[in-house]
Amino acid sequence: MSLVTFGETALRFAPPDGQRFETAREATIRVDGTASGVAATAGRLGADARWLSKVPDTPLGRRVVAELHEFGLETDVVWADPGAGRQGLTFHEDADPPRAERLLQDRSNTAMATLTPGELPMGEIQNADVVFTSGATLSLSDTAADTTGALLRAAAGMRAFDLDFHPGLWDAEDAQDALADLLPAVDTLFAAEEQVSAVFDTTGSPREVVHTLATEYDLTRVILTRSEYGAVAYHDGVIHEQDAIETSAVDESGQHEAFIGATLQQLAAGADTDEALLHGVAAAALSRTLSGPLTPLEPSEVERLVDSQQSRRP
Amino acid sequence: MSLVTFGETALRFAPPDGQRFETAREATIRVDGTASGVAATAGRLGADARWLSKVPDTPLGRRVVAELHEFGLETDVVWADPGAGRQGLTFHEDADPPRAERLLQDRSNTAMATLTPGELPMGEIQNADVVFTSGATLSLSDTAADTTGALLRAAAGMRAFDLDFHPGLWDAEDAQDALADLLPAVDTLFAAEEQVSAVFDTTGSPREVVHTLATEYDLTRVILTRSEYGAVAYHDGVIHEQDAIETSAVDESGQHEAFIGATLQQLAAGADTDEALLHGVAAAALSRTLSGPLTPLEPSEVERLVDSQQSRRP
Amino acid sequence: MSLVTFGETALRFAPPDGQRFETAREATIRVDGTASGVAATAGRLGADARWLSKVPDTPLGRRVVAELHEFGLETDVVWADPGAGRQGLTFHEDADPPRAERLLQDRSNTAMATLTPGELPMGEIQNADVVFTSGATLSLSDTAADTTGALLRAAAGMRAFDLDFHPGLWDAEDAQDALADLLPAVDTLFAAEEQVSAVFDTTGSPREVVHTLATEYDLTRVILTRSEYGAVAYHDGVIHEQDAIETSAVDESGQHEAFIGATLQQLAAGADTDEALLHGVAAAALSRTLSGPLTPLEPSEVERLVDSQQSRRP
Amino acid sequence: MSLVTFGETALRFAPPDGQRFETAREATIRVDGTASGVAATAGRLGADARWLSKVPDTPLGRRVVAELHEFGLETDVVWADPGAGRQGLTFHEDADPPRAERLLQDRSNTAMATLTPGELPMGEIQNADVVFTSGATLSLSDTAADTTGALLRAAAGMRAFDLDFHPGLWDAEDAQDALADLLPAVDTLFAAEEQVSAVFDTTGSPREVVHTLATEYDLTRVILTRSEYGAVAYHDGVIHEQDAIETSAVDESGQHEAFIGATLQQLAAGADTDEALLHGVAAAALSRTLSGPLTPLEPSEVERLVDSQQSRRP
Amino acid sequence: MSLVTFGETALRFAPPDGQRFETAREATIRVDGTASGVAATAGRLGADARWLSKVPDTPLGRRVVAELHEFGLETDVVWADPGAGRQGLTFHEDADPPRAERLLQDRSNTAMATLTPGELPMGEIQNADVVFTSGATLSLSDTAADTTGALLRAAAGMRAFDLDFHPGLWDAEDAQDALADLLPAVDTLFAAEEQVSAVFDTTGSPREVVHTLATEYDLTRVILTRSEYGAVAYHDGVIHEQDAIETSAVDESGQHEAFIGATLQQLAAGADTDEALLHGVAAAALSRTLSGPLTPLEPSEVERLVDSQQSRRP
Amino acid sequence: MSLVTFGETALRFAPPDGQRFETAREATIRVDGTASGVAATAGRLGADARWLSKVPDTPLGRRVVAELHEFGLETDVVWADPGAGRQGLTFHEDADPPRAERLLQDRSNTAMATLTPGELPMGEIQNADVVFTSGATLSLSDTAADTTGALLRAAAGMRAFDLDFHPGLWDAEDAQDALADLLPAVDTLFAAEEQVSAVFDTTGSPREVVHTLATEYDLTRVILTRSEYGAVAYHDGVIHEQDAIETSAVDESGQHEAFIGATLQQLAAGADTDEALLHGVAAAALSRTLSGPLTPLEPSEVERLVDSQQSRRP
Repeated sequence: MSLVTFGETALRFAPPDGQRFETAREATIRVDGTASGVAATAGRLGADARWLSKVPDTPLGRRVVAELHEFGLETDVVWADPGAGRQGLTFHEDADPPRAERLLQDRSNTAMATLTPGELPMGEIQNADVVFTSGATLSLSDTAADTTGALLRAAAGMRAFDLDFHPGLWDAEDAQDALADLLPAVDTLFAAEEQVSAVFDTTGSPREVVHTLATEYDLTRVILTRSEYGAVAYHDGVIHEQDAIETSAVDESGQHEAFIGATLQQLAAGADTDEALLHGVAAAALSRTLSGPLTPLEPSEVERLVDSQQSRRP
Repeated sequence: MSLVTFGETALRFAPPDGQRFETAREATIRVDGTASGVAATAGRLGADARWLSKVPDTPLGRRVVAELHEFGLETDVVWADPGAGRQGLTFHEDADPPRAERLLQDRSNTAMATLTPGELPMGEIQNADVVFTSGATLSLSDTAADTTGALLRAAAGMRAFDLDFHPGLWDAEDAQDALADLLPAVDTLFAAEEQVSAVFDTTGSPREVVHTLATEYDLTRVILTRSEYGAVAYHDGVIHEQDAIETSAVDESGQHEAFIGATLQQLAAGADTDEALLHGVAAAALSRTLSGPLTPLEPSEVERLVDSQQSRRP
Repeated sequence: MSLVTFGETALRFAPPDGQRFETAREATIRVDGTASGVAATAGRLGADARWLSKVPDTPLGRRVVAELHEFGLETDVVWADPGAGRQGLTFHEDADPPRAERLLQDRSNTAMATLTPGELPMGEIQNADVVFTSGATLSLSDTAADTTGALLRAAAGMRAFDLDFHPGLWDAEDAQDALADLLPAVDTLFAAEEQVSAVFDTTGSPREVVHTLATEYDLTRVILTRSEYGAVAYHDGVIHEQDAIETSAVDESGQHEAFIGATLQQLAAGADTDEALLHGVAAAALSRTLSGPLTPLEPSEVERLVDSQQSRRP
Repeated sequence: MSLVTFGETALRFAPPDGQRFETAREATIRVDGTASGVAATAGRLGADARWLSKVPDTPLGRRVVAELHEFGLETDVVWADPGAGRQGLTFHEDADPPRAERLLQDRSNTAMATLTPGELPMGEIQNADVVFTSGATLSLSDTAADTTGALLRAAAGMRAFDLDFHPGLWDAEDAQDALADLLPAVDTLFAAEEQVSAVFDTTGSPREVVHTLATEYDLTRVILTRSEYGAVAYHDGVIHEQDAIETSAVDESGQHEAFIGATLQQLAAGADTDEALLHGVAAAALSRTLSGPLTPLEPSEVERLVDSQQSRRP
Repeated sequence: MSLVTFGETALRFAPPDGQRFETAREATIRVDGTASGVAATAGRLGADARWLSKVPDTPLGRRVVAELHEFGLETDVVWADPGAGRQGLTFHEDADPPRAERLLQDRSNTAMATLTPGELPMGEIQNADVVFTSGATLSLSDTAADTTGALLRAAAGMRAFDLDFHPGLWDAEDAQDALADLLPAVDTLFAAEEQVSAVFDTTGSPREVVHTLATEYDLTRVILTRSEYGAVAYHDGVIHEQDAIETSAVDESGQHEAFIGATLQQLAAGADTDEALLHGVAAAALSRTLSGPLTPLEPSEVERLVDSQQSRRP
Repeated sequence: MSLVTFGETALRFAPPDGQRFETAREATIRVDGTASGVAATAGRLGADARWLSKVPDTPLGRRVVAELHEFGLETDVVWADPGAGRQGLTFHEDADPPRAERLLQDRSNTAMATLTPGELPMGEIQNADVVFTSGATLSLSDTAADTTGALLRAAAGMRAFDLDFHPGLWDAEDAQDALADLLPAVDTLFAAEEQVSAVFDTTGSPREVVHTLATEYDLTRVILTRSEYGAVAYHDGVIHEQDAIETSAVDESGQHEAFIGATLQQLAAGADTDEALLHGVAAAALSRTLSGPLTPLEPSEVERLVDSQQSRRP
């Protein structure tokens, strides 16, 4: 099955564990983007996946693409003139409870914000079995939002979208407006539970939330991730629930992308919702045991974990 | 409010996690001192804090002062001639249970042991709202003990003291003698529970211990820290108790200084004992999630943690 | 007491925690061998221990011996011509659950596989109080298996053997054949529980397994390690059980060797089976708190942990 | 003597030696700013030095100030609201010939670009013996350029300025316009030789260039640094030349700031031009042997090097 | 232009600079192969390059391919069953004179040694403008040698070959025999000067050597690299010489591949021999300033260096 | 041949290259001692070498012995009670010219300073072909000086001594007094040229100095090392000179010990003075290409370098 994703991928700098930027001397450099992370996971698990984006032709922009290639992802990149847009950056301080993690978004005036539909290979998007993008792309600029809408509307296959709401990028009101325009072109919505409540006026249990969103925005599927609890999905009038799989070591970065990538790969390969969600939480659990947003998952270990979970069921 | 602390700050060498000096090839270098740690925390949380000490004018002595400045602490240092005293060193092997940590004290003949009252800016001490020092300073030499007594007696504000007893520096009997001389000049005593039992012949529960110590030494406040349990304080005839806040990642170094620094900052700013203790355990908890003895705490996150703890109370 | 062990020691490469070889840029280098690890632990805890092996005279072979010396082990090494055999290598990706660790064995055509009895100092083996080797040595080649048999038969003291079965080295059927030849020359058998079930057709509880093995192969002692549960031993008609000691930080590499080394050192020093097993689990627990297969244990801390465990008993 | 400098200080990320961002996994983090570097050097060599700036109140902004404090510099910082301006960043790939180094400027919309004169302590500037700033500050925004002019005009002491021209920040034409406005308020101009030719239409030898610039802009002093050759200065109708001091290890970052800092400290302390230039090249040479832009120079070693150079003269 | 290369790529482990395996604790991991390095350089400089090989489907084999992708190389890999062949390894200790570097080849029984022509996409090879492989591939096994011959004979474009002789892999006599069979299928021969003398009985100056080899083996082009001196080439009856470009920092690994990759890219793009050699030495010089065998060269900097060299000519 | 050396070995901490302790966060840990370094080199090159010393039974003392064992040295250590003496420490900042290196000696009250002759195995010393110690041991205490004298007088073989004068340990006058007592028991004196002039009132050329010292102190051999120039020796009325061998990478630590170790090994193995000196400078040159004081030299590479030097001679 073919999956095409598009969106910005930031370069993420992070100090060593237990340190802060205030006194750190070194930072690790990793790429961090919803669209590329989803494509990378789906591709590693068997999809014919490809990531589309606009990236500045600078050492930082090339850094983004090099790491994606290293993890095996195929890319189709519009190289922007160095003066025509920055590389988006994030500065991330991970933290163990009760300390809260911190994420400094430094993504103004990026190359991706200038992307127009004409710059992308529309044929690929039209022919893909699944097209995926996310809310962070919407937030970059009006141009980016328009492009996102045009691309989703052009897609003939499944049109999946992750809410991907970050307060450091825009505020909830702007997000609501943009989503009101965009969601009619979406059929499958992913969202993290805490982001839903930050953007929408939904109340009630997760089961109620997915039902409400599906109804209100006329969506085929709504899949809510609940970081420590698993996932809840609405599809075709039915609510599906999937517990998370406990992990002893936890690097949460990338788990959301791993979940979506595995779920989409399964859905497009013909799995039913329960099977897809189980693969999603399995990929997310394995991702939490590996460092960084992009992780070198292998299909065999996802299957082994899925099997061991199924064998525990009554 | 103004806080002045004085005492020796050691340079701490530590092998990487899970290693020992016996086979380690590298060590991290961090400063580790009760007086400087207390001042640094109080200063970061809003106090006008300053650390006084005598330090050898060598690369190691300058290293101590540079790190304190990096963490934002103001210092008033007497620079000793390189030949007139060593820089105190500690060699620390951290350990997870059931393995015990090891601390090798290498602090003989330090510059601080030669400090006389005339070398310090007495005006600062006399005018400070709070003066703080600790037992390790007492142990360095008779000169250091005399100086400590002279300084505390000269102080007009709150006179706080941490027991800070380390068997590698002196024995319990000598400590008792020195404390008998010194405690009349102290009004607020901090002590870690296990150090109290190593030095004093106290028996009974923590609540009894703080009461006994306050009575015996005529102290205004006695505050006992109980590493996994929180703090117990005696003040004005009342016992106050504060649970610790659980943390998932634990670097215990510096938590005691964070507790005292936050507690003193609060007390001097007019907080009542319960409020001060709660800030103390919050600062200690956050400190445990950051590596090293000195940690870059921020007032806003201490307040956020204090608020979240208060909101859990019935 | 004198202990002589022989067998191959691999050089182990491992990527940083949370990473995989697929995308790692660095690896740590450590030695990893059952026979050398057992001797190193026993030696650190008081035995007069020595490791015998055949090692290629290359930078990698010398690396193996240098690390063993660093940890205080005496060695008696036959240096093989660089062209006459490789240095055995392993590539290890540690993992936290639910991800499984991976061990790539790269140990074909090693120098050790060419070892003949005449190359070793037979006097040392004949006179040792305890001789120890393990199943991995058997698997290397027919020559190595013959040599192992010859050496054990030559030994006059206790003849201890660890099952040490790795599917990457040979299969269960070959192992059974080789063991059928060898076990008559063994009196004390160590085995990890999961390896027993991979090699033998044993069924039943651990208590039954040790009894069955002792009876079937006419062994004086059978000691089964159960990684999270401790050890079960059969000796002289009696079953002995020992709980594991919980540890908060876990690097499992080397714990099996630490267990055997401490147990053998105790048995040879005259301890009874319960005492020996308790020392074994204490050494294993401490080993889990230190990184790498070889760990710088100290006798005093093993004793302290043994004492603290004994004081908890009713 | 008192020195006040103001200007932006960037946070510099750099991959390990011999690597590029395209494939690097880590970066070192160091501060890199002309104004702060000049003040830090002058301060270490004996001046009463202070750096003024506007910095965002974010982890990155606090990082800048923490490192400056670590190197002993006093600061007077206006903390900008996180939303009101970015922290300026640079991405630097060092290179050995014939490969050229690369510097990616990422300094749009910084907090410093919004600085107005009213935000700074004008008294400090008016009373300082020397005020120093540089061209990079001019380039940030019209506001920054206006502020720079206002501050220099307010200064009563020596008004020193470094050309500090970076093509990544603005172009030569804009720089000329801004300098035409500003240079009347300057009396001492520093410039690197290759930057002079990039900005001005000067021709001729370095001796002619300093004379031409001094005449054209009515400057008291013009000091040209010639990285591998030393410095040439015009003062009071006389040309002064100073050879560079050869170094075997070369990290060129920070050498320009070390030169200016030492030269200004000497001039303000009453040294004549030759003496000041000699201290400048000595500080620059020592700086090249230490890694990073900010270096922990010591006065005694600068003096020793100055002495050894003087003793070589005929 | 299209370039197809094939051959084994080893995984190279190296201790930190100035250390040896005997006492090192860590190693860097990099890929190191003539065929992949040539393709990677040519691809970065503009060729449509692709590397063909057989690689074990293990963490080590995947590591090889991931790094090649990271550097932007397209690959066409036959994945071998883990049990069907090892990943070739090298262990490299770099050294500065007068110490000699050491290279331990650990490449017996690799997956590549089992490659048969039928496993490769012959169409790609037949249609490529340039096909390249090297002597190390010949040495792996008779199968590999036969396959190499079959592939070169199938190629319709330029058939380039690098001598790539390593004493650790085979001896000169075997190499001569294999080359006698193979060279008739080659038209362009690359060789390092010291390897030529190790394999062939050539005497005389480099100019004579290239002429002799071209005549004896009926080659269109012979290009000899002389590490510190540059290159000497024979083509069409004419000898071409090109000086090396001096570099201040030297990591020699990968320079040979950079030279060949750039030279082939130029030749295939229509450059004459002198132009091609100049690009070759420029790429080699830049490669020496970057760490590791694979280096992220950029076309613009190769051109800039070529231009600066040309402008120096009389 | 058998060589016994005795003396203190310090634990050396050093910041990363290009950094200073003032702002460093990590330090490497290496052992650094004249007596152990000489024995280690001699042992690696073929001597039956052994190092005798008194070391505190602490993590730091054990660290010293572990590294010596790692490099293959046999030791005979008196373990001192932790309270009975410190482990000697040095803090070393390496530097490239024109910056001067800095060495902070922190070696007061060490365990070695309490060593008495009765604690050492006198038999080993009496029977050794060569006994070696150095001036730093003399400086530790009167006890150490007395012990040094007693041991040298007890030796029946060659009695070699290195001047090893460090101003941070004692002053020249004390050194002269101690040497006046000791040198009558010495027959072979090594000294670095700059240390000779710091201790003795010698004038004249190196050739004159060795002659003067030999005559004045009635020494069989005097060998002067001249770091960049090689060595000059007096023996039996003849002056021998040996040029140094140039190296491109330079870590000077340990080169002096490598020189003495190789020279002594050769002399004791029957080489003449010229041969011995040539091996000395070869070992020193190789040592400069490896990091740290102790270096893993191999006999074959010393021989190869000796041969290449001899083949250059007319």
